[in-house]
Amino acid sequence: MKRKITLKQIARELDVSISTVSKALRNSVEISDDTKQKVQAFAKLYNYRPNNIALSLKNRRTNTIGIIIPEIVHHFFSKVIRGVELVANKRGYNVIVGLSNESFAKEVINMEMLANGSIDGFILSMSKETLQQQDYHHFNETMSQGMPIVMFDRVVSDVNCDKVIVDDFNGAKNAVKKLINNKCKSIALITTKDYVSVGKLRTQGYLEALEESKMIPQSELILKIDDSLDYEVHLEKLEAEIEQLFKSNEKIDGVFAVNELYALSAMKVARKLGLDIPNDIQVIGFTDGVLSKHATPSLTTVSQHAQQMGEKAADLLINKLESENDEEEERFQTLVIPTELIERESTK
Amino acid sequence: MKRKITLKQIARELDVSISTVSKALRNSVEISDDTKQKVQAFAKLYNYRPNNIALSLKNRRTNTIGIIIPEIVHHFFSKVIRGVELVANKRGYNVIVGLSNESFAKEVINMEMLANGSIDGFILSMSKETLQQQDYHHFNETMSQGMPIVMFDRVVSDVNCDKVIVDDFNGAKNAVKKLINNKCKSIALITTKDYVSVGKLRTQGYLEALEESKMIPQSELILKIDDSLDYEVHLEKLEAEIEQLFKSNEKIDGVFAVNELYALSAMKVARKLGLDIPNDIQVIGFTDGVLSKHATPSLTTVSQHAQQMGEKAADLLINKLESENDEEEERFQTLVIPTELIERESTK
Repeated sequence: MKRKITLKQIARELDVSISTVSKALRNSVEISDDTKQKVQAFAKLYNYRPNNIALSLKNRRTNTIGIIIPEIVHHFFSKVIRGVELVANKRGYNVIVGLSNESFAKEVINMEMLANGSIDGFILSMSKETLQQQDYHHFNETMSQGMPIVMFDRVVSDVNCDKVIVDDFNGAKNAVKKLINNKCKSIALITTKDYVSVGKLRTQGYLEALEESKMIPQSELILKIDDSLDYEVHLEKLEAEIEQLFKSNEKIDGVFAVNELYALSAMKVARKLGLDIPNDIQVIGFTDGVLSKHATPSLTTVSQHAQQMGEKAADLLINKLESENDEEEERFQTLVIPTELIERESTK
Repeated sequence: MKRKITLKQIARELDVSISTVSKALRNSVEISDDTKQKVQAFAKLYNYRPNNIALSLKNRRTNTIGIIIPEIVHHFFSKVIRGVELVANKRGYNVIVGLSNESFAKEVINMEMLANGSIDGFILSMSKETLQQQDYHHFNETMSQGMPIVMFDRVVSDVNCDKVIVDDFNGAKNAVKKLINNKCKSIALITTKDYVSVGKLRTQGYLEALEESKMIPQSELILKIDDSLDYEVHLEKLEAEIEQLFKSNEKIDGVFAVNELYALSAMKVARKLGLDIPNDIQVIGFTDGVLSKHATPSLTTVSQHAQQMGEKAADLLINKLESENDEEEERFQTLVIPTELIERESTK
């Protein structure tokens, strides 16, 4: 293998600093035109390749998948990434991750950045802000430029692409039916505001389960949390709202929470109020994260099979990338991953 | 703004599929030369830009930081990423994340991929395999090409770059001293095999604390776990080893564990054996993750300030990227982040 000339060697030869060489090659305004010409000519003479952009220009396939997720400190998303990684590695692809931090602008910036030749296609879950603003132009533009997208978990019907979703409705419905079968008479729901599609679907599942059992939904038993706040910081506020819910409705003997943190907070508040779990109050959460398993009592949850979602999404994307059939490339499917109720100590 | 021509429009004009256009532009071998020439000529005529590589070739600065971490399903690393993001966004930089999955080869592949014009510099924590193989050529090559690296948490003296580390030694020492002050007479250590530098330093801190208090370290109280196994799957094996430790040494009244999972497992096993925490046995963990706070009893831990590590690493990297002083660019520093003992219910 022919040894590449390094920045250091160029710097030594021309008696300038490495940083000057680097900046001159980047055409920085900080460096004089004279120096830039000298460095660039030298680099060219010795075939200096600062990176492989030239290569990637010739051969567009990067064999890399870009993942855009709203939030990194979240077990669900990490498990999805692990699933994508597993399949991607098996099929010869690499993975890089961009974070939207629940911001529309950051989602757009990240997609633009990665679409610039770094990746072949996207697997993504939309930011809350994108869902609120209902502005999906960046997804549609990316796809119209020939870059496929697979969406997971948070999806909208306005974007026509492959999708992998959790069966949120039935997952929630089955959880609440479990509480009803366990003789709960007054079941509270702790959920998010409605613009997050998964919160909405889980709320509908709760309502449907009550209706099927001829129980009348009571609005005072439904607590809608504003999850635009970071609850790792605002945990106290969350707990205060739940305490208020319990105190105003002393008959509550069952709780269905749309995520793990809400469920754990409900258990904490219940203990504080002297209620025994599961004898006085039974609790079911959604998302089978690390907390559910390690909580005391351990939490009964609706598992979303996050890793499987990632695996399916990766297969869908790579199939599309490698498809030789043009018609197939323009056909989209939505895979629904069934949930599973994992029973632990927080229910009877 | 002049409207860009899309793949779809090219396809329509030339009466071929979008996928054919896309593949022709990527110079795919699947497409005939004739079609490729036709598509490429048309795309050129209408100034079709499949992406902005041309732009990035002109202006090398991407204003993007690449993070390479060993593992995504890990609260510590997510918190570091959050810290990097915070500072990066404030200073006008974007962040993308690559995962090594504790593999040397994947670390190299990820770095090569991101160094190819996607990013300006790296913030990274080495894979376990890299530490075992002691092969650091990819770091040194990257830097010699003018791309700065800041390492965090897992670092080695063989690589000369900016570093941000936790004060593992003193963090561990203070934790064990706390147990000694709380009248523990027989303190067990649950740690990793020695090739992981942080495990080694925390072990040394444990030994030093015992020595300063004239307590004699007993090898049978030190349990070294092979953490190349995934303990989310092999949790039972971990618990069995801890149970063995407790049963063979019934006098153990204190446990210092080098991570959160080991500490929680120790508490679980202790409860199973009928031991009361903290009256019969006191437990301290390392890493202040979500589990520590939500465990019952809640776990006393050594907090690493992961987010702060990320913030410091981002500042070091961006300072270097923006430095106008060449000498400063070649000077490296190691920042040591002090730990903090967060006392909860698992200690007296």
